[in-house]
Amino acid sequence: MADIEIRFLPDKLRVRVPVGSPILEAAQQAGITLETPCGGEGRCGKCRVKVRDAAPPPTAEETQALGAELLGAGFRLACQCRPRSDLTVYIPPASRQLQQSILSEGVAHELALDPAVVKQFVAVPAPVLEDQRGDRERLLAAAGRPRASCSLALLRELGRTLRAADWQVTAAFAGDRLLAVEPDDTTAALYGIAFDVGTTTVVGYLLDLIAGRQVAVASDMNAQVAHGEDVISRIQFATDNPHGLELLRRDIVGVLNGIIGHCCRRAGIDARHIYDAAMVGNTCMTHLLLGLPPGQLAVMPYVPVITAARDLLAAEVGLAVNAAARCYVLPSIAGFVGADTVGVILAADLDRSRELRIAIDIGTNGEIVVAAGGRLVACSTAAGPAFEGATISRGMRATAGAIDAVSIGDDVTFTTIDGAGVRGICGSGLIDAVAEMRRAGVVDDTGRMRSPAQADGLPPALARRLREGAAGAEFVVASQEQTQNGEPLTITSRDVRQLQLAKGAIYSGIEALLDEVGADASQVEEILLAGAFGNYVKRESAVALGLVPAVPLERIRSIGNAAGVGAKLALASRAARERAQDFAARVEYIELSARPDFHLRFAEAMTMAPLAPGKSKAAGR
Amino acid sequence: MADIEIRFLPDKLRVRVPVGSPILEAAQQAGITLETPCGGEGRCGKCRVKVRDAAPPPTAEETQALGAELLGAGFRLACQCRPRSDLTVYIPPASRQLQQSILSEGVAHELALDPAVVKQFVAVPAPVLEDQRGDRERLLAAAGRPRASCSLALLRELGRTLRAADWQVTAAFAGDRLLAVEPDDTTAALYGIAFDVGTTTVVGYLLDLIAGRQVAVASDMNAQVAHGEDVISRIQFATDNPHGLELLRRDIVGVLNGIIGHCCRRAGIDARHIYDAAMVGNTCMTHLLLGLPPGQLAVMPYVPVITAARDLLAAEVGLAVNAAARCYVLPSIAGFVGADTVGVILAADLDRSRELRIAIDIGTNGEIVVAAGGRLVACSTAAGPAFEGATISRGMRATAGAIDAVSIGDDVTFTTIDGAGVRGICGSGLIDAVAEMRRAGVVDDTGRMRSPAQADGLPPALARRLREGAAGAEFVVASQEQTQNGEPLTITSRDVRQLQLAKGAIYSGIEALLDEVGADASQVEEILLAGAFGNYVKRESAVALGLVPAVPLERIRSIGNAAGVGAKLALASRAARERAQDFAARVEYIELSARPDFHLRFAEAMTMAPLAPGKSKAAGR
Repeated sequence: MADIEIRFLPDKLRVRVPVGSPILEAAQQAGITLETPCGGEGRCGKCRVKVRDAAPPPTAEETQALGAELLGAGFRLACQCRPRSDLTVYIPPASRQLQQSILSEGVAHELALDPAVVKQFVAVPAPVLEDQRGDRERLLAAAGRPRASCSLALLRELGRTLRAADWQVTAAFAGDRLLAVEPDDTTAALYGIAFDVGTTTVVGYLLDLIAGRQVAVASDMNAQVAHGEDVISRIQFATDNPHGLELLRRDIVGVLNGIIGHCCRRAGIDARHIYDAAMVGNTCMTHLLLGLPPGQLAVMPYVPVITAARDLLAAEVGLAVNAAARCYVLPSIAGFVGADTVGVILAADLDRSRELRIAIDIGTNGEIVVAAGGRLVACSTAAGPAFEGATISRGMRATAGAIDAVSIGDDVTFTTIDGAGVRGICGSGLIDAVAEMRRAGVVDDTGRMRSPAQADGLPPALARRLREGAAGAEFVVASQEQTQNGEPLTITSRDVRQLQLAKGAIYSGIEALLDEVGADASQVEEILLAGAFGNYVKRESAVALGLVPAVPLERIRSIGNAAGVGAKLALASRAARERAQDFAARVEYIELSARPDFHLRFAEAMTMAPLAPGKSKAAGR
Repeated sequence: MADIEIRFLPDKLRVRVPVGSPILEAAQQAGITLETPCGGEGRCGKCRVKVRDAAPPPTAEETQALGAELLGAGFRLACQCRPRSDLTVYIPPASRQLQQSILSEGVAHELALDPAVVKQFVAVPAPVLEDQRGDRERLLAAAGRPRASCSLALLRELGRTLRAADWQVTAAFAGDRLLAVEPDDTTAALYGIAFDVGTTTVVGYLLDLIAGRQVAVASDMNAQVAHGEDVISRIQFATDNPHGLELLRRDIVGVLNGIIGHCCRRAGIDARHIYDAAMVGNTCMTHLLLGLPPGQLAVMPYVPVITAARDLLAAEVGLAVNAAARCYVLPSIAGFVGADTVGVILAADLDRSRELRIAIDIGTNGEIVVAAGGRLVACSTAAGPAFEGATISRGMRATAGAIDAVSIGDDVTFTTIDGAGVRGICGSGLIDAVAEMRRAGVVDDTGRMRSPAQADGLPPALARRLREGAAGAEFVVASQEQTQNGEPLTITSRDVRQLQLAKGAIYSGIEALLDEVGADASQVEEILLAGAFGNYVKRESAVALGLVPAVPLERIRSIGNAAGVGAKLALASRAARERAQDFAARVEYIELSARPDFHLRFAEAMTMAPLAPGKSKAAGR
């Protein structure tokens, strides 16, 4: 059978397929995934494409799904239309499926590519004496968007651009706003960048908004660290120094622009082809990024300047991208539950969950969200520093040289990240270590560590690891031969206490939220661990330590950097933004410190085997 | 009968009226004119006000006109509600009638005050631990506008402002945009400024947008004159000099800001209380004001960058008013029919006229609009320079020392503006002079002036005034004793020719438009003369000269600076803006030079007594 050539726009891809193959197959061959919720049976109408040349008459399914008007405009269903000769096909963004593997990182998404900024090639009719419409009116009429608005800056260049390009231009629109007019056909170059602005680390993801693919990722330290490790010290710096806020703002904008440069170099694209950005971060980070005074976040009742989503100009924010690009900051929920948590909810589809699900994002703070029966409740806990190593004697972040997993049998074995010599211990290593120490009887349920004098009954190798330190008993995890600095790495009684405080904060937060929705741990369908910590922590140890309620281990799932995924979803899909705005307004924020029983619960939650719910003690063993 | 006190907000006016007087009467006593299209009979519901205290139960008319919801919210009809005790009444802007005498200047308007920017006092509930909504969300919810957007600059100050004002603030909104938040109750201070940006003169009108009154007016020369007297030479300057456009832009912005300063000083208000501006001007002036390159206006086919209305930030334009103020530029129609003509149409209500009406705005150019049977057709003529004195040997603008009226019987008599010694002759004086010269037989119908040798039959005093000049016959209007420079003021044959060219341009423009709508001059209901020229010109002379078709004189009316009135209407009323946008898009622009018969018509129209239509010749005598 003869082959024909199908050409896809705006991708400019060509494939050869046998005569009579559906366009859908040709698209697959070109690496383009179309929306086909009905399974390609011509019922849902989602795989509509626009054909530029003659094609066989529409099938009954096409007539039914598209109607006369769309058919008349050249629209066809990719699953139904089987061309018999060469054909050029334009794929509208909404018909294209986001590439699941790229955007999801552990969470399944079905989401149509539907970016806030779109591009359109426009052949503008040149003016003549009988048609003296203004340049703007002429362009917008030809683009079929007569009511679009635009900036004065654009108008100042418009006449020149149109004439220099001989009236053949590409227009970029965000809704009813004309953002940019470029000479010639640049419809294939449409990129966006998503940022997860963390207190410590910033990650940027460059997406191709035509193909729905991630084309580069880069991360960097948050340069604000120089003015304070944590949120509170940065707020202090912003408040105490006359130019503190502006300094912090420039720090983070500089980091973002560095990441933009990196991503563009890696992907081989021009930053001027980035037309949109989407941002998540905790409430303090988004305040600092936008130059909003953060002082009020640190004083009762911890109220942000704004929680709603912000739809800004990238230039206002200071991003070195297209001068007319947009910048969307996802909504936040409260002073200590930020846009990053909204990103997690979005990525984990928690807003659509009917079953009881818990998402925990452990970064510098620990934010928890419980979804139950259509409700979303959230809280924030001051859990992070221990897990990130800040309050642990030999604690460190999860980077090379960090002990990240520990087993204790007759003696101790461990692994380090990258197999490097021991430099310290990270959160997951610490949780493993303490969970194993407890299983081995080195610490008891209340967290008390045996002293060397109380080592009776322990395996001899373990007994030898116990020693008396400056502030009570210590347990040697790595010997001086195993460490880079030549000193043994020990876990002190104080370290265990710090970990108990941190895990108690998380656990009691979970309990408070379960209480709020009138559920108990036995009803939990799924526990989702977000963030780098969630990637490394062993589920057994998390349960054993009582960091999370004791559920069957298969119900605990790591979902990676879900906050960043949320930012990417918002970048790629207007529907995702709408969802985020909708659910952010209905998330119920629970202020733990306002609950009269919270301190009691917290104290209880510090024990290794939580007293409630019933099953957890057993499961912890 | 006892008196009670009625207090009106936001005006903060108090009046005492007899018990049982309708609120409408109390408002009149306070100098507030409410909308009462039904004549105060309780039928139209337009005079609705909001009462703050107990009032008698609603009448049947009120129940009918307002409905339960509005009544429940405290709304009442001012014409029906007759308070029996002291009462505070809030008057919504839309219930207030624009003060006709101020805004109309010769054109009757019935228009509700409905400015684009409104202010609202908001008592914001302070945050508590149980209510941690963001500042923005809290404010907008209290203002009843939860979906309003705002700038980053506003957000950066919002927290401080709310707390410093103890959560008692005034919010200024433009539609769904929150423009400004000010401490305390500043609802009474809401001003706007309307500008008529002429090629030669700029006029600014400061309006109180609460009371609907003009509170100051000031004018100044357009400083761009230094770079060219007329539109074409300024376009040349903008095109030929690298920074030409920016220089011209700064010139005009400087003039506008000077006028703003003057107006504020005169009215005793702070420029920060100006929240809105509205602009008219010819297409070149609006281009220069906004920094839009005007070059394309001077080359075929004379296409503007934009004709649609522009809704801008006053700060983008460079106006020294409230930092968050808006600036509205009225739509224009074509390269040579600008927003000033749209202002004239708006002020003259031409868009609502069913009868045949002609509006002529003679400034540096002459724009003509014909309204007929729902259609609006417009053209532009290069008529102005002669009427403004530019091409006349002793021509000058209508300022002190200009001959503005001339009569010729046995000899010549004239008046000057301000009674000063003669410095020159302005447009209306020239028209008078030539019309009278023709009546007296000094010039014939074709415009040819008698030479001194052909003075037979003229009264001796007139014959003595004829002399031979450098380029043909001249007629002495003012002797050397009557002029300031000691030289006689003459009208030369060339001056008569120039005037014929100018009036011929206007007349043939009118004819072309009448032709376009299929009408002739006998059907003309009204001829409206706009602009300073229209104020001074004698109707008899305009007809005698054949500047306008010969209609009964009572059908010719001067409407003053109608373009400026249009700007004021757009400033005071959103409905006026919508009207302008609607009709501007449907005005049919007639390009005279594109009409094959135009040059012939033009030549014919130069004769003093137009050959067509039939009646005009007789009326011209």
